[in-house]
Amino acid sequence: MAKPVLYYCPRTRAETAMWMSEELGGVCDIKIVNLKTGDHKKPEFLKINPMGKVPALTHDGVTVTESAAICVYLADAFADKGFAPALNDPKRGAYYRWTFYAPSCIEPMMLDKLGGVKRENSMAAGYGSEEDVLKSLDVALSAGPYILGDNVTAADIVMGSLLNFATMFGAIEKKGKIADYIDRMTARPAYAKMQEISAKYAADLGYE
Amino acid sequence: MAKPVLYYCPRTRAETAMWMSEELGGVCDIKIVNLKTGDHKKPEFLKINPMGKVPALTHDGVTVTESAAICVYLADAFADKGFAPALNDPKRGAYYRWTFYAPSCIEPMMLDKLGGVKRENSMAAGYGSEEDVLKSLDVALSAGPYILGDNVTAADIVMGSLLNFATMFGAIEKKGKIADYIDRMTARPAYAKMQEISAKYAADLGYE
Repeated sequence: MAKPVLYYCPRTRAETAMWMSEELGGVCDIKIVNLKTGDHKKPEFLKINPMGKVPALTHDGVTVTESAAICVYLADAFADKGFAPALNDPKRGAYYRWTFYAPSCIEPMMLDKLGGVKRENSMAAGYGSEEDVLKSLDVALSAGPYILGDNVTAADIVMGSLLNFATMFGAIEKKGKIADYIDRMTARPAYAKMQEISAKYAADLGYE
Repeated sequence: MAKPVLYYCPRTRAETAMWMSEELGGVCDIKIVNLKTGDHKKPEFLKINPMGKVPALTHDGVTVTESAAICVYLADAFADKGFAPALNDPKRGAYYRWTFYAPSCIEPMMLDKLGGVKRENSMAAGYGSEEDVLKSLDVALSAGPYILGDNVTAADIVMGSLLNFATMFGAIEKKGKIADYIDRMTARPAYAKMQEISAKYAADLGYE
């Protein structure tokens, strides 16, 4: 099997996908899409992702976009690494619940909050309200130490990475269970490895 | 294996999950959560989904929320029905791409448009811009007749149902490939069956 190719730019959400790749043992080849020089809006990349966003992943002739989808795909493609519950494991339901919840509820809530967007009523936002999101997060983090209990899965990379961003940007307060969980996840060697690779690319490309 | 229980209210997104259930042969037991009488905000239901939203699904002691997650979970749980590509099929990547894309990009775009929300720049919205979403949809619907090509999958129920809502509410124009696709999907017997069940519950509960 050819290695998946991860289209990546440092200091973007593509770091989530690279974190997943590192958890699995560095399974992806990296292709830089430099946002500073507008690579993401060039025809060559738009053919891969018409959204003009990183990350994107190509593998065996198939393109995957959306950070959470890439994490879940990689966990299945390298199933022997144990980052996804088996298809017939009921935990697969909770796994999907939270991998979908992160980009479809937490992220829109975060973007509304950071963008100062007020909605007339909670039915007008897919995520309900900030309070609803925090209550649900409390449930997600209650099984502990990981979302599905004892074993870390791709759901933790998706959730850990998003909560790390959300607290860094001030959309969610870093305290209690949320703080403990972020600290637990970012203490992982694969997170450090991703940070190291990202820092190298960031320096090379003049990102900081 | 006990039947999954689908927490459902007619005339809500729970219809997407019921459509999926009907595609698989009516695999779920239905439990009504009447939004009119506030069932969704009562402690009993909040224990299942602290978001206070339908649909929710319980199965083998596990709770699944988020329409797309429920569809993808059911397709795996009833894998013999062929609504999900195999784990080692590269199409699994495209399958995840579009099942995640629908709730994390199309839906926020739709809610911003219907809510009259303007954002300062496209980086401030996870979905980029309306134009980006329409271009990506064009890619999603190009393999045809279904998202993964010749075979219908849960990705089509997620996408077909959302596009059907989005065009009904006027967030996306029903024309071209999008119109053809919606017509193809809503012509399916399982869609008609879901509509029939929904209409019955809607009449019983005085929803119309």
